[in-house]
Order: sequence, then structure tokens, then C-alpha cells
Amino acid sequence: MKVLVINAGSSSMKYQLLNMEDESVMATGLVERIGEATGKMIYKKFPDTDAEAKVERDDHVPDHRAAMHFVVDMIKDAEYGVIKDMNEVGAIGHRVVHGSDYFKSSVLVDEAVKEVIRKIIPLAPLHNPSAITGVEMAEELIPNVPNVAVFDTVFHQTMPERAFLYAVPRSLYEEQKVRRYGFHGTSHKYVAQQVATLMGKKLEEMNVITVHLGNGCSMAAVKNGKCVDTSMGMTPLAGLMMGTRSGDIDPAVLTYVGEHKNMSVEEIDTMLNKESGLKGICGLNDMRDIHEKAARGDASCKLALEMFSYRIRKYLGAYAVVLGSLDAVVFTAGIGENDDIVRSMVLRDLDCLGIELDLDKNKGRIKASKVISTDASRVKTWVIPTNEELQIARETVAVLKH
Amino acid sequence: MKVLVINAGSSSMKYQLLNMEDESVMATGLVERIGEATGKMIYKKFPDTDAEAKVERDDHVPDHRAAMHFVVDMIKDAEYGVIKDMNEVGAIGHRVVHGSDYFKSSVLVDEAVKEVIRKIIPLAPLHNPSAITGVEMAEELIPNVPNVAVFDTVFHQTMPERAFLYAVPRSLYEEQKVRRYGFHGTSHKYVAQQVATLMGKKLEEMNVITVHLGNGCSMAAVKNGKCVDTSMGMTPLAGLMMGTRSGDIDPAVLTYVGEHKNMSVEEIDTMLNKESGLKGICGLNDMRDIHEKAARGDASCKLALEMFSYRIRKYLGAYAVVLGSLDAVVFTAGIGENDDIVRSMVLRDLDCLGIELDLDKNKGRIKASKVISTDASRVKTWVIPTNEELQIARETVAVLKH
Repeated sequence: MKVLVINAGSSSMKYQLLNMEDESVMATGLVERIGEATGKMIYKKFPDTDAEAKVERDDHVPDHRAAMHFVVDMIKDAEYGVIKDMNEVGAIGHRVVHGSDYFKSSVLVDEAVKEVIRKIIPLAPLHNPSAITGVEMAEELIPNVPNVAVFDTVFHQTMPERAFLYAVPRSLYEEQKVRRYGFHGTSHKYVAQQVATLMGKKLEEMNVITVHLGNGCSMAAVKNGKCVDTSMGMTPLAGLMMGTRSGDIDPAVLTYVGEHKNMSVEEIDTMLNKESGLKGICGLNDMRDIHEKAARGDASCKLALEMFSYRIRKYLGAYAVVLGSLDAVVFTAGIGENDDIVRSMVLRDLDCLGIELDLDKNKGRIKASKVISTDASRVKTWVIPTNEELQIARETVAVLKH
Repeated sequence: MKVLVINAGSSSMKYQLLNMEDESVMATGLVERIGEATGKMIYKKFPDTDAEAKVERDDHVPDHRAAMHFVVDMIKDAEYGVIKDMNEVGAIGHRVVHGSDYFKSSVLVDEAVKEVIRKIIPLAPLHNPSAITGVEMAEELIPNVPNVAVFDTVFHQTMPERAFLYAVPRSLYEEQKVRRYGFHGTSHKYVAQQVATLMGKKLEEMNVITVHLGNGCSMAAVKNGKCVDTSMGMTPLAGLMMGTRSGDIDPAVLTYVGEHKNMSVEEIDTMLNKESGLKGICGLNDMRDIHEKAARGDASCKLALEMFSYRIRKYLGAYAVVLGSLDAVVFTAGIGENDDIVRSMVLRDLDCLGIELDLDKNKGRIKASKVISTDASRVKTWVIPTNEELQIARETVAVLKH
């Protein structure tokens, strides 16, 4: 089966067409700056193969319909296309950020499902509306092909109450759905399954901590194959320090800052999401820039790196206790895969958890799954490149076969 | 030297007169409901000895001056008193909740010190004003006796930047003093010193996690005698789940609740401080009531206990990593000393940290310092009754001798 994966953001659309017979990528690309004066459209066929060909176009992309048109046109383009007719696509898998606790698995999209995704919009006001738009554009431009919704939250739905409830009045959960949901679930699930396969074990018989470090950062404690805790919360603001997000802070800081800096709730929200994290501490949020300045002795960049890795270390300890025993730790996503300095700062002196980093194996950017702990390390520590598109396609196939 | 310890709250005043030659308590008591129609005044001389005598009076106590008058009158009372003249008191030690990062140690109070404590009021609006009042009443009614300020925050002032800074714009720290301070420092310091003494070691050569579980709950990671991290934050709201306080939550919950429940910042602050924690989950915040209902099968009480202990367990794991190696864990304060069920829920299945609980030793309320781990347990786990008054008196003596 061929599966088209769509990840629609508020002003962007990522896509990938996969042939699920061999899980190969037939076409992939990105439409950016939808609605702006000049948008950017990128299409690549057979990426990373000898047959690779790329089309790049700067032009106005008025809306998501136009973006989806570009995708459809390119995929079946006479010169650059990879299929003749959109009916060759067996299914379309859509990334949806928030499934609240209504969705415990990926689902075939019908009107009722769309209605529930719309109902969840207050929990993900920036993300769920674009997902709905993505589905509607697919329904319009690629009719007769089933759509499947794959949620970032679903993998974490196995958390027990003690982990997902906040210690606030129960009515906030019962009436307002305030609880920990967790995100990046597709990535956590993918690398957890990969590490089991690579170690020749069943995930159901393993305890794993997955560490997703990208623009957003989160960790998950996976016990016998099920997520039992995760660092992000009701929203993707909580938990680890991120590029521009604060992660965990004393909630009273919001009240205090509101009063003493005379900032509105919206301004504080923006500050915690856009001006905090690495950027708040050292003014930069690209790890390459931060390493460059830190290497030249910049104290605030060094501090940002220390804080960033210190918080990951604390969650490693917390989740080791949550899991009771630990078989593997997996690093993934941009920073997790490419940043050997951060990995070594996180993984040094972890004898207490049974983790011993091999500095040589850890070196450099890691493009293919690899163990970075020593042979003697009780807990195997891995870098495994994430592949959310493939995971979404796998989920999509599974839903249709069910 | 005799030291009078004063702990002045907004409508209460706790006091204790200690003879620091042998650290014995000469007199102790409490004035409650200051300013209300009927206040309560309690005085006890030579508590827990054969010479114990108690005075209890229900009467209007208009203000802190009247409260201090009661204390002074009783201490030198012809029948119940323990000294003849207030000049026999060598010093008065005051508990001050917030010292911000201005105070790195306990200090002799002069006008400049009072001015700084006043300056810190925005960080502790409910606590620091009463401390100032306590000092002023002592200066007025017990003239010529030096006053020493002992801060809840001082013990945590050794935390490194990576632990005390939040990942928010640096200007919030530099201009508004937004950072992690930590509280219960007097208690954490006291039990850390006690455990070293009891184990015949130097605290400077030990790594200890101290777990203070009372109305407020906090933990500290103490490395070679210095606090390197603690669970409370800029305010005592953050960290562990408490009787009525939420502890850690996604900061975005505040924004969300403000918008969707149409609550003001003050209302949310009150909710997180007074209606959350154990009370938020099961409607009760007295552990005895919670255990009673849980034993009768009440699901929300069971859940509250599970959440309460789960969060302590996560901090134990986090701090074990922070410390690298761990010599001892100490439980203290009301719940920590008296609640064997909570202790056993926290300490079960902690082989990964080298902690093995002895269920027999753990049983019941513990009145005197005691090991509750097995002989084989690598990490010794203790219950040590806290004594903040004694610690304040010790600090007071140390300041005067300095």
C-alpha cells in the first residue's frame, strides 16, 4: 500500500509518500509560509537515491488548498511524479497534535472524528485547526482515499492516573480536561519499537527511557512497552528546557511576573513559549550557535547547555525509579541525534543508573541507529534517528487492516 | 546562653526559650488567632519533664505586641516563669521565611537588615511582614537583647546556577529576582547535620537526600554538606504535592484555567495554594482522615496517597542522579515522622537506588531518630524528628559567637 503522510501546521504543510511494501520514500517535501506574500514549495522524488530529483518554487501560496494542490500535482506530475493517479494512494495519514483522552489509538477519520478533533481545539488552539484543514483539503482534492488521524498524544494514553493527574481540584480534570497528556508520542513510540527490534527483544519485555530532543524536547518512561510517564504536560510547554520554551517552573512565577512586570496572561504565555528556554538564558536557540559561542568562552551559552542537560539528567533519575529497572535509553530528534556534546553532558557520571558512555562511540552526528554506551554498560544507551512520517504511515496501514 | 526563638506568622506567634548549655527547652508555647475576637494563648514550662506545667488562656489578643507581652509575662511569671529578668536571655532568634539571595547566612538584625527583609516582601508577602513585626515587638518589649534573623532560604543558597535558575528571560532574575530559592532550610539543615552525627561521619563527606513532609513538603539534595538542589521554587508552591498546594504543574494550566474558567490571577493563586494538593484530589488534607477513608476503600483517598508518594519517588531518583552517589535518606516533619504508610509507599521497590526498607523498623509513629532500612541496605534510610526551634537557637548562638 502507498500512504501519503500529511503534517499540516498553521502556515506550513509537510508531506511524504511512502511505499509501505518496503517502507521506502517515494516523494517528500514541504510547503512553507502559506498565506504570506511569498511562499516556498519544495518537492523531492526518490530522496537519497540515484533517482533523486528536486523541485523548488518561491511563489504565493494563498491557503492550505493551494498547498495541497501543489502536493497532488507534483506527485502525479508527468516529469517529476511517482504515480499516475491519486487513487493509487491507499490511505492518507494525518498528524494531529492533540487527541485529548478521547482518542486511545489512531483512527479512520469520519465526520464524528472531525467533530471531536474540533472539540479539542481549546487544548491545542495553534495545532488542531490546521490538522482539520489538512484533512478537509485531502477529502476535497484526493476524494475516495481514506484518511487516518494519528495523534501525538495517543502513545501516552497508557499513563496511570498517578502520573497524568495534577494535584489540583478534580473538577478541573472532570470539567475542563486539565491533565498531563504528553506529546511527541509518535516519535517516542517509533524509537521505543526500534530499540526493541535492534536489541532482538520484545518491547513488551523491556523498560526504556526515550529522550526526544528537537525544537521541542520531551522524555518518556516506557514500561513493558507502555508509556507510564512523560515530561510534557497538558501542553508542550512543560518538562524539559527547550529552544524557546521554559519547561518546568514554579507556577507562582506567572502570578508574580503578571503583578510585578504588569504583563497580561497572553504576554506571559508568549514569553514562556517563545522567549524562554535556551533563548531566555543565552539569547540563542540554535544549538550550533550556542556551541560555537560556548567554545569561545561565552558564560551564558555554557550555562544554557549546563541547565539543558542538568534537567534531562534529573528526568533520567526520576524515570529510572518509575520504571524500577532500566534496559535502554534512546536519544532521538535533531539535538538527540546530532549533538554529541549535549549527549556527553547528559550521560557523564551516571554509574548510579548503570549507564556508562563510550566517548568514542558517542562522537559526532549519528545518521544510523547506534549504541553509544560501553560494552560493559548495564543499560544500553542508543542514538536512533526518529522517523515520525514512517510511524504515521505504519499506524495508518494498521488502522486500515484492522 | 539562653535563647528565645520567635516564629511570628500573620495571626500567630510560636516561641521557645532554650538553655543552650544543654540545649534543653525551658519554656515553649503558641499564641493563635491574633486579631480575632477570641485568641488562644498557650504556655508550657519545662515540657516533657517532671516539672512540666501548662497555662492555657482563651482571650482577645489584639495584636503581635499583646502576643509578645504574654510571652514575656509568662517567661518571668512568679509562679510559672523560668527566669527572673528578660536580660537573662542572651539573644532572640527569629524565623524569617524569605531571605532572597541577599542573605547567605543567619545575621544579627540591625536597621539595614530590617530594611532588606522589607525589600524582600514582594517575594513573601504573607510571611516577611510578620517576621519584621516579630523583631520590632522584641526590640520594644525585650530591649538590650540582640536579635538574630534565621532564614528558611539560607541553607539552599549554595545551589549552583544550573539548579536555581529558571529557563526564562534572564532579565526576570536580574531585575525581578525570579529564581528557585527553596524553603524549610532550617529543617533540612538540622536533619542533615543530625544524620551525619548519628552515622559518625562528617556531613562534608556525605551525600544525603532530606525529605521534609509536613503541611508543606520539600526535598533537598545535600552534596558534601551543601544543598545543591531543592524541590520548592521561588515560592513554597512548587515541587511536591502538599496538603493543599499543587506542587509542580504545567505552567500553561494557569493560562488555560484563567481563560476557560474565567478566573482571575488571584483566584488561581488561591486555588493552587489552598484548594489543591491532597485536598484537590480527595477533598481532605489531614493524612489521618485520608488513611482512614482509604482503608475503607475510598478510591480518591487511595489515589491522593499514590500521587503524593509517586512524586516523592520521582524526586528521589532525580536527586540520586544529581548527587552521583547517595549515603542516606532522611524523612522528617509531621508526615515524615508519623506516617509509616506514606513512608512505605515511597520506599518500596527502590533497589535501583540501593534502598531497602525494613517493614518492621518502619512501623508506627517514630519519636526518636531511627534507621528504617535493612542492615543490608546500601543507602541508610532514617526517620529523624526535625527541630527547627533548636536549629534557630543554634544559628543564633553561632552568629553571636562569630
